[in-house]
Amino acid sequence: MKIIEELYRKARELTNLNSIMALLQWDQEVMMPSGGGAGRADQFSVLSTLIHQKITAPGLGKILQELSDNPEGLSSADLSLLRVLKREYDKNTKLPEKFVADFSRLTSEALPVWVDARKKNAFKLFQPLLERVITMCRQQADFLGYVDHPYDALLDLYEEGLTTNNLEILFGNLKTELSQLLQQKASEKKPIPENLADMTPMLLKDQVHFSERILAEIGYDFNRGRQDISAHPFTTSLGHSDRRVTNRFRPDSLEFIFSALHEGGHALYEQNIAEKYAETPLDEGVSLGIHESQSRLWENIIGRSHLFWEKQYPLLQESLPEQFQNIDLDDFVRHINRVHPGMIRVEADEVSYNLHVLIRFELERGLMEGTIGAADLPGLWNEKYQHYLGVKVDSDANGVLQDIHWAHGSFGYFPTYTIGNLAAAQIWNTYCQFDPDHRQTLLQGKLDKIRNWLTENIYRHGAFYPPADLLQKVCGEPLNSKYFIDYLKNKPEFSL
Amino acid sequence: MKIIEELYRKARELTNLNSIMALLQWDQEVMMPSGGGAGRADQFSVLSTLIHQKITAPGLGKILQELSDNPEGLSSADLSLLRVLKREYDKNTKLPEKFVADFSRLTSEALPVWVDARKKNAFKLFQPLLERVITMCRQQADFLGYVDHPYDALLDLYEEGLTTNNLEILFGNLKTELSQLLQQKASEKKPIPENLADMTPMLLKDQVHFSERILAEIGYDFNRGRQDISAHPFTTSLGHSDRRVTNRFRPDSLEFIFSALHEGGHALYEQNIAEKYAETPLDEGVSLGIHESQSRLWENIIGRSHLFWEKQYPLLQESLPEQFQNIDLDDFVRHINRVHPGMIRVEADEVSYNLHVLIRFELERGLMEGTIGAADLPGLWNEKYQHYLGVKVDSDANGVLQDIHWAHGSFGYFPTYTIGNLAAAQIWNTYCQFDPDHRQTLLQGKLDKIRNWLTENIYRHGAFYPPADLLQKVCGEPLNSKYFIDYLKNKPEFSL
Repeated sequence: MKIIEELYRKARELTNLNSIMALLQWDQEVMMPSGGGAGRADQFSVLSTLIHQKITAPGLGKILQELSDNPEGLSSADLSLLRVLKREYDKNTKLPEKFVADFSRLTSEALPVWVDARKKNAFKLFQPLLERVITMCRQQADFLGYVDHPYDALLDLYEEGLTTNNLEILFGNLKTELSQLLQQKASEKKPIPENLADMTPMLLKDQVHFSERILAEIGYDFNRGRQDISAHPFTTSLGHSDRRVTNRFRPDSLEFIFSALHEGGHALYEQNIAEKYAETPLDEGVSLGIHESQSRLWENIIGRSHLFWEKQYPLLQESLPEQFQNIDLDDFVRHINRVHPGMIRVEADEVSYNLHVLIRFELERGLMEGTIGAADLPGLWNEKYQHYLGVKVDSDANGVLQDIHWAHGSFGYFPTYTIGNLAAAQIWNTYCQFDPDHRQTLLQGKLDKIRNWLTENIYRHGAFYPPADLLQKVCGEPLNSKYFIDYLKNKPEFSL
Repeated sequence: MKIIEELYRKARELTNLNSIMALLQWDQEVMMPSGGGAGRADQFSVLSTLIHQKITAPGLGKILQELSDNPEGLSSADLSLLRVLKREYDKNTKLPEKFVADFSRLTSEALPVWVDARKKNAFKLFQPLLERVITMCRQQADFLGYVDHPYDALLDLYEEGLTTNNLEILFGNLKTELSQLLQQKASEKKPIPENLADMTPMLLKDQVHFSERILAEIGYDFNRGRQDISAHPFTTSLGHSDRRVTNRFRPDSLEFIFSALHEGGHALYEQNIAEKYAETPLDEGVSLGIHESQSRLWENIIGRSHLFWEKQYPLLQESLPEQFQNIDLDDFVRHINRVHPGMIRVEADEVSYNLHVLIRFELERGLMEGTIGAADLPGLWNEKYQHYLGVKVDSDANGVLQDIHWAHGSFGYFPTYTIGNLAAAQIWNTYCQFDPDHRQTLLQGKLDKIRNWLTENIYRHGAFYPPADLLQKVCGEPLNSKYFIDYLKNKPEFSL
């Protein structure tokens, strides 16, 4: 067998095992009876050990080295596969097995302590565990290696090539503009339309029905996926033609509409990757940031626009007549674009959102540099919320303890949310140049035109290009926060 | 690490991988979108190759040999694990890899041809493939080895220790008695009660609701399982505390009630295996025959009895009032016990059922001996249906082509259905000696008393005892068809 064929064979095996892992997770979140937890944990453990053995196998390392040393005759797809697998191999082999096991044990221990601390509003309970997590993340950075800043090693785990320096520039441009815009919008204090504030509770079946309709509208293919219910909405890939979304439905919350569009955006990306990449590591979105750009594009830029709802609002009124037949389209669109700075990131509007991320970025950077320690976090957190958002945090539970990420040991993850928001605006700007009639396109609900352009330029490539190269190729320049700021400043829905 | 601990470690890994395999299958039958098929097939292939490598690994063989040679100090559970794993190892290592691959390819090819042949009622289309399947099954028997009869090697795959000679004795006792009883009952030609013949179509949600209620009544634990819909009802184990059932619901068929009880019986067995066997190969029903004895016990012996329904019928009337409030309990019970010989095995009543199996047994035995060939099957099939059941088969589609088993290459499987029926009656007879008030027990719906006895005597042991030893231990004698014949001859519901 030719050595490149051997690489493809190993890649297929790994990809299939990862799809199986995704099924174990999907089933746990969506279907598994409560008693199944202990057994499932052991299934995860057996399968992840197997995957780890395969991705760190010396045989794989040898093949990767040999092909890297002699790349003559390899196609561009071969080279891309080689790059992606080498990155995975390096990430996994750089961390000693004992470290991985210890880290996994520590985060398993930290998770319930964080839950408990948040419940009791007692940061002190979590602090000792968090200190150990921070120490191990710092060690992780050393094992992974970096040039300028230890935090770079962690950022690269989630967004290939992203650095602290990049983020300082991006956030530097954002923070003043966003804080000012936020202050201005917040001072307008638009009221919630009465009919919306006092809405008849929605029935689950009506919500599910609308959610399916709106997913179908944006082009989600139910023959190659399905929608189910879980505690937190997510999108997962169980194979090239099996990309599933979940949602959650509360009788009194419109959140399900935007979760459907958000997860739908992730799923459109994955459903439209070229068939030729099936069962290889190229058959997925290229990075968390670019992935998030697609969920945010469909959720926010398209999904909160007046133009979009001019076409789609009747569907909502049809699916939930009791709730929406007496609500004016303008009221609805104004409501879903309300700017209201608050303590909680996941409830944030488009203007506030990246300020929440900025705060986490500044804290993580300091923790990794060693200029601040775990004990400083509550104070700094509250100070920064006051400074950037003008918000007084009422408790650590609603403050520094609100996110699961640190208990998970995921330092460097938060910034990908902002990368996603910025990239979404920049990509949308490029689309609008391609389609000068984009207002008509939205108004007439020709969403396939948008989806086809995204497929052609982004989706079909899967993980073929590194994220920065892809963005450069699509937009003709590197990531730039200007487009996002312009988008917010000129957003007509804010003036409704 | 002690060598026995190493065996447990390998057993746990294999059991977890088998649970993951079961999840892939469950999801395919119950949840997977249509597009997912090709990817899922590759996931099966990757995982089954991994499992095959592990169960045939020379390292495992060495451990098994060493422990078999030096069993001193092993507990009875250790010895049982050793026996079960050695059996699996032997079964898998005796078949050359090339044979396994060729056989798998052949049956993949045979399956759609069988579907097509059945649709077109054209046995000739299937015959060449079936000839090749028969040849390979004969080779399989040679690879596996046998003492008296090649068919023994195949029977043992599904029911440890079962032989052609055993079956000849069991069926020898059955066939005359059953044919006579069938003739007598069929001649009575009881009509279908008018209200049942002309029933308002049932709503899916009402059927699902009743199915859940009756499962809960017999003691199925929904915290450690769930019920879903699939094309064919089945029970599967995704872990020690995750044993799921499925059912199918047609608006005009009572089948779902008995499928619920049938799968419920399988699931009760698995849900009540002792915790200490979790994540080992002892954590499952010991054989197909003993497993089937539990599904048949709950479906037929308990689930078609007047006493059971005296308590449960109001539940059915409550769940489906439009259909059942005007149907008399006696009419209902008479109807669900109607004896009506027909062409189709899966629709057969309790008297006919084992005659369908007998016919398949006689044909498979002849095919494995080489005394008959594939070309003889349609003629012999129709002859035997006339002889044993008094039924004229109207087409090969409703005759020799009705079952999927031969296209699957599963020769030796059918007899386990009869083993199940016979064992169910024999075990119930033993229970009735333990509980002389068993009529009152059923009448009052004290099903936990029955379930607890079954758990104590059968369920909790999992695969600890070989099937014949288990039956001997429970009933004080080997499998005997007398109890089943007595049960049918004295069944009071036949006289309603």
